Amino acid sequence: MQEQNAAATPEVAADDIQTRHQRRMARKKAIVDEKIQQAQRLTGVLLVHTGNGKGKSSSAFGMVMRALGHGMKVGVVQFIKGAMSTGEEKFLRRFPDEVQFHAMGEGYTWETQNRERDMEKAALAWEQAKRFLTDPEIGLVVLDELNIALKYQYLDLQQVIADLDARPEMQHVAVTGRGAPPDLIEIADTVTEMQVIKHAFKEGIAAQAGVEW
Amino acid sequence: MQEQNAAATPEVAADDIQTRHQRRMARKKAIVDEKIQQAQRLTGVLLVHTGNGKGKSSSAFGMVMRALGHGMKVGVVQFIKGAMSTGEEKFLRRFPDEVQFHAMGEGYTWETQNRERDMEKAALAWEQAKRFLTDPEIGLVVLDELNIALKYQYLDLQQVIADLDARPEMQHVAVTGRGAPPDLIEIADTVTEMQVIKHAFKEGIAAQAGVEW
Repeated sequence: MQEQNAAATPEVAADDIQTRHQRRMARKKAIVDEKIQQAQRLTGVLLVHTGNGKGKSSSAFGMVMRALGHGMKVGVVQFIKGAMSTGEEKFLRRFPDEVQFHAMGEGYTWETQNRERDMEKAALAWEQAKRFLTDPEIGLVVLDELNIALKYQYLDLQQVIADLDARPEMQHVAVTGRGAPPDLIEIADTVTEMQVIKHAFKEGIAAQAGVEW
Repeated sequence: MQEQNAAATPEVAADDIQTRHQRRMARKKAIVDEKIQQAQRLTGVLLVHTGNGKGKSSSAFGMVMRALGHGMKVGVVQFIKGAMSTGEEKFLRRFPDEVQFHAMGEGYTWETQNRERDMEKAALAWEQAKRFLTDPEIGLVVLDELNIALKYQYLDLQQVIADLDARPEMQHVAVTGRGAPPDLIEIADTVTEMQVIKHAFKEGIAAQAGVEW
């Protein structure tokens, strides 16, 4: 018992922790370094953010910020959303040389209740998306809430996939919205499902500027 | 059979679809409107983005964009990350009047392998975070990768929680990083778990500018 107590003096314990920590981190570094070594291919990636949780669109707009930081040009098309002027729209309109921003207008589909008009709007928005998807100068294309337009079959999924496939090799695309169709997930490189663990809305807290819009 | 065929002329079918669509959307609108009616409380929210999937930090930076669009001031502290200059850092440093940006330096913890130095850096970063968390002029505080610092016990969780609780009433905070501690999830308003469905890295595609950094 006495020996154990002696070994547990603060200095020795701190040394132990540091040694263990160092060993653990060295192992981790070796694994991470090897993974990085293996992942060397540079190519445009297709990302899909889906699920019911918060963070799908905001994550795409965080990528816009990264892209702008690296001097890339960005194209944004917002499907479905658009009646309300959002923070991201207000902000990005400050950089017309770097970001082309197109909001489809009309707001959420359950506000309009007019399928035909929604389909026309969606078709126009996809025309804009195609202009971005054929322009190699644009490094990142955000197709915000595209999954909703696909879910309601406002757009033809196979045509959308064909246009995504035909884009410039180094162009990144981020698609957001609940209920991403399986065929889109299939052709995507990175797919994240945002899952709700809890949401302030359920506690009676309003959607607020800077958080939800 | 003939009657059925007659009823399935394109015009009638389109009308049916539109009627069904309208009814479904009207129901949805009623539910959404009622929820919005109930969720009226305005207050600063604490958001936690956790899980192994992509989108935790980028979603926080998307919120930064929203906040800036609404004229709010923003404070960012990056824990753990920082050796590499990221796109978000380069971009946000263009707006020194609107964004205060502090990167902890030193890179990921498995690069340094020095627990004591990491703890000192984390403590300094938390001092900066506390300056933001006591400043009512700052509408949004991003504590990027704080969960990693908590996981390695570089910071005292109960102190962190106390400081978060004591912040100005209308201030929003976004905390990111894998493995958010249960006590933090407990006090958060909105928690999203980013789940990996697939990741380009596993297919040998490198982490790239505008996507991962």
